[in-house]
Amino acid sequence: MLTFDTAPDRYKHWQLSFDGPIATLAMDVREDAGLSADYKLKLNSYDLGVDIELADAIQRLRFEHPEVHAVIVTSLKERIFCAGANIMMLRGSSHGAKVNFCKFTNETRLAIEDASAHSGLKFLAALNGICAGGGYELALACDEIVLVDDGNSAVSLPEAPLLGVLPGTGGLTRVVDKRHVRRDLADCFSTLVEGMKGKRAVEWGLVDRVYPTSQFKEAVQARARELAAASDRPASGPGITLNPLNPTVTPDAIQYSAVSLTVNREKRTADLTIAAPLDPPPAGPDEMVAMGDQFWPLRAFRELDDALLRLRVNELEIGTVVIRTTGDIDAVLAIDRFLDEHRTHWLVREIVLFMKRTLKRLDLTARTFFAFIEPGSAFGGSLFELALAADRSYMLHDDNEENVIALSAMNAGPLPMSNGLARLQTRFLAEPRKIDELLARGAPFNAAEADEAGLVTVAPDEIDWDDEVRLAVEARAAFSPDAMTGLEANLRFAGPETMETKIFGRLTAWQNWIFQRPNAVGEKGALRSYGEQGRPEFDWKRT
Amino acid sequence: MLTFDTAPDRYKHWQLSFDGPIATLAMDVREDAGLSADYKLKLNSYDLGVDIELADAIQRLRFEHPEVHAVIVTSLKERIFCAGANIMMLRGSSHGAKVNFCKFTNETRLAIEDASAHSGLKFLAALNGICAGGGYELALACDEIVLVDDGNSAVSLPEAPLLGVLPGTGGLTRVVDKRHVRRDLADCFSTLVEGMKGKRAVEWGLVDRVYPTSQFKEAVQARARELAAASDRPASGPGITLNPLNPTVTPDAIQYSAVSLTVNREKRTADLTIAAPLDPPPAGPDEMVAMGDQFWPLRAFRELDDALLRLRVNELEIGTVVIRTTGDIDAVLAIDRFLDEHRTHWLVREIVLFMKRTLKRLDLTARTFFAFIEPGSAFGGSLFELALAADRSYMLHDDNEENVIALSAMNAGPLPMSNGLARLQTRFLAEPRKIDELLARGAPFNAAEADEAGLVTVAPDEIDWDDEVRLAVEARAAFSPDAMTGLEANLRFAGPETMETKIFGRLTAWQNWIFQRPNAVGEKGALRSYGEQGRPEFDWKRT
Repeated sequence: MLTFDTAPDRYKHWQLSFDGPIATLAMDVREDAGLSADYKLKLNSYDLGVDIELADAIQRLRFEHPEVHAVIVTSLKERIFCAGANIMMLRGSSHGAKVNFCKFTNETRLAIEDASAHSGLKFLAALNGICAGGGYELALACDEIVLVDDGNSAVSLPEAPLLGVLPGTGGLTRVVDKRHVRRDLADCFSTLVEGMKGKRAVEWGLVDRVYPTSQFKEAVQARARELAAASDRPASGPGITLNPLNPTVTPDAIQYSAVSLTVNREKRTADLTIAAPLDPPPAGPDEMVAMGDQFWPLRAFRELDDALLRLRVNELEIGTVVIRTTGDIDAVLAIDRFLDEHRTHWLVREIVLFMKRTLKRLDLTARTFFAFIEPGSAFGGSLFELALAADRSYMLHDDNEENVIALSAMNAGPLPMSNGLARLQTRFLAEPRKIDELLARGAPFNAAEADEAGLVTVAPDEIDWDDEVRLAVEARAAFSPDAMTGLEANLRFAGPETMETKIFGRLTAWQNWIFQRPNAVGEKGALRSYGEQGRPEFDWKRT
Repeated sequence: MLTFDTAPDRYKHWQLSFDGPIATLAMDVREDAGLSADYKLKLNSYDLGVDIELADAIQRLRFEHPEVHAVIVTSLKERIFCAGANIMMLRGSSHGAKVNFCKFTNETRLAIEDASAHSGLKFLAALNGICAGGGYELALACDEIVLVDDGNSAVSLPEAPLLGVLPGTGGLTRVVDKRHVRRDLADCFSTLVEGMKGKRAVEWGLVDRVYPTSQFKEAVQARARELAAASDRPASGPGITLNPLNPTVTPDAIQYSAVSLTVNREKRTADLTIAAPLDPPPAGPDEMVAMGDQFWPLRAFRELDDALLRLRVNELEIGTVVIRTTGDIDAVLAIDRFLDEHRTHWLVREIVLFMKRTLKRLDLTARTFFAFIEPGSAFGGSLFELALAADRSYMLHDDNEENVIALSAMNAGPLPMSNGLARLQTRFLAEPRKIDELLARGAPFNAAEADEAGLVTVAPDEIDWDDEVRLAVEARAAFSPDAMTGLEANLRFAGPETMETKIFGRLTAWQNWIFQRPNAVGEKGALRSYGEQGRPEFDWKRT
């Protein structure tokens, strides 16, 4: 079973070092320490294990090192920055494993951009050597790219010409949509196996600056200091420690402190339950910092994030997830008020951004989510985002009308989806004015009110509830898993598209198509036959 | 060989009738007149042949009937509007045929919306009976949807639950992004085989109004008159006649009056050449109307459109198309000035909109386009859009510096891409201010100037030209066709996404993935086994 838990002292592939406001995250992949013994991670190529460490490092920089203002992303290998995703790993992976790998690496790169855009943590890619494919895509996720000008080091996206697949981690999108490289130059670049180097790479906009080897390190340091100076992060720490989650794992369940995930493999369903906080919010920011990773929103959402990741990679046949919440809805709303009140505090900012990323992870998880809102649940504010993120929500219209949901400031914008809109905005594209009315209400909604307001999908009464929710789950579980994935990927993201949704919508969908095509993965396909003698054989029909 | 040429007197599946400013386009599909004898087009289900007639009808309404201000789209079959794309046709189609079919039907529906948005021609879907799948997607493309309330007639998107594929003609996108149906309701609707009817269909936003059978026809007529009254089309005709193109077709070439397409199947390349006008523009609008479909921009772009469509469906292995222009560049610029000067004339408006749609067709054609700009070419203004639409442009830097390109008002906005931007805007996302400078120049650019301005990709000199362009084409033709399709689909559409690009990017890419998946098209897949005994069998892994 794959897990996502790691820490710097256990990293095999990265070295994290600190120098005042500058951290250096240096790639030094151990060839023989891949997740599988079937391949060697040569030339700083990577597999999911390498990326899990990268994601962990970014996360820890945010929470554990608020004094860090800029990060240099570089490599410890001579003349090699990163050769990209390991091709032999991709070759040997199932379709689902390829797709999950790309999804996670995309989320990690977007987390880098999120830290830059919202946390004041700037990233400088210091390309000390060859930077190919996913290596260049990692650089593209940084704020700036500096390349050594040694006559050899180049950036490249050789996936299409060499392997018959796309750069799958946002490369094509970021080249034209983030760096605004001219589309015809991007076409030339993305079909040139050897890539581009030196001044031309700067002229085309592929990198920001090149420096001769003799000046490279100094120039990188100088630029990192400039980037750090513009940050609004705290001048000094301490941060808080992200301790291991240590869930109790049994064959059918993962039990964390506030989250549990139970799978029913026969029915291909799972139950995901999140418990409201048991305690009132801390008295103030100092007490919150002292609580560290035990502060409920951070603890609960870290557990939720981990549960989603494990579900994705370890439980491939679980198609439908029922989300429930338990506990005191007022305790959730109290936490939300605390987060809103202290939103300028660096740790609150990080926690809310983390909640946002976790909810995005849910939006992007290719499983059906149904929220079941029953008496005793705690779907208020930030936890109500789970119901808004779900494909459908069922709210029991109890005879006593005690079953309620509630909104908070956390539903008004701090937790946007990848499309840049709050989930309420996406939900009410037809009636944008309604949102302010609902938010202004300041009181919970019982089932009839929530139904009337359009905040839940259906509100069956006590007589119908059991049958209705059972049939809904059964019907869903019987549909084609692929059709549901495609359906959800289209219905969840109404409204504007952003670079982020483009990466997960357009780019990823095309990549998934290609990952399924014989021209890539068939017996003679380019990815499958890479490294073997002879050329790939293609069905030449253009589609 | 499939052709796209038809006319109302040859329609097999539609009846077009006129009543002053109201036209009625009524579907009455002949079961036994499908493109193949392998299936029967029952219940007003359709294949590409039915859609070619629909596209032709929309086009003729625009050019031949300027006096028509509103179109009622309905059916002549009792209690049936349209059952959608014929399932047996889809079952029996190759992957490429499915993809091409969906692309063309999408373009046709977008042409309906284009006519509404820009031509003042409004569309009212009058659903007189069952409206399923592609039938509902056709209705979604109309401005308004009226459904008969007879206790039986419903709208539905049963593709996902019934066939394991997506509604492939924009249905999911239009439900949430055009009609702004709440995403959770859209989820329920899109998984409900029987669909929705009556008042609930109105409440959910799936249709605009329902009427009992007794009031239906009158209500439709009344609403059509209201829609017509708001139109800015001419109060009366005459229009111009769109005569058959009658190209000379030989095994390797299609020769039109101003366009030629020659294929080299061994090299998997084609040469597409467009000739500039031979004559000066007409003296004024009256002379233009008298010229009818022989007016150069309409004639040349109709031919170009036809050539692209034939290439798509008849020459599947041609991967790379070299675009050239010939003739007098000043003659093109003179036409552009005429179009700009008379842009408020209804026919000029229609012609420019048609040029826009043809260029979009090129953007959306899954083949590589290289523009070769050589002495004697006519890449000015509207014809320069071809070079801007190409994945790359090669301009010969001739010693005499006589090889030129030129911009015109037609490059400044009237011919936007699907993303809503002019091609120059998409090209210069990094330097938006540069565009006005370039447009203000008012003189042609020789190769050095065009290269310096970033208007062409490469400008090899006479010594390098032959080798450089030959190698570029050879290299391109050797790459995986699928990788090139995915690459181009991502690089061509930098900048904002629109409902239109969402349909072709996100939705279509997911649909193409599903069209390739065993769960849909495998031996036991849902699409493949539809109509046979037993249930489909799925690989339950969620991806």
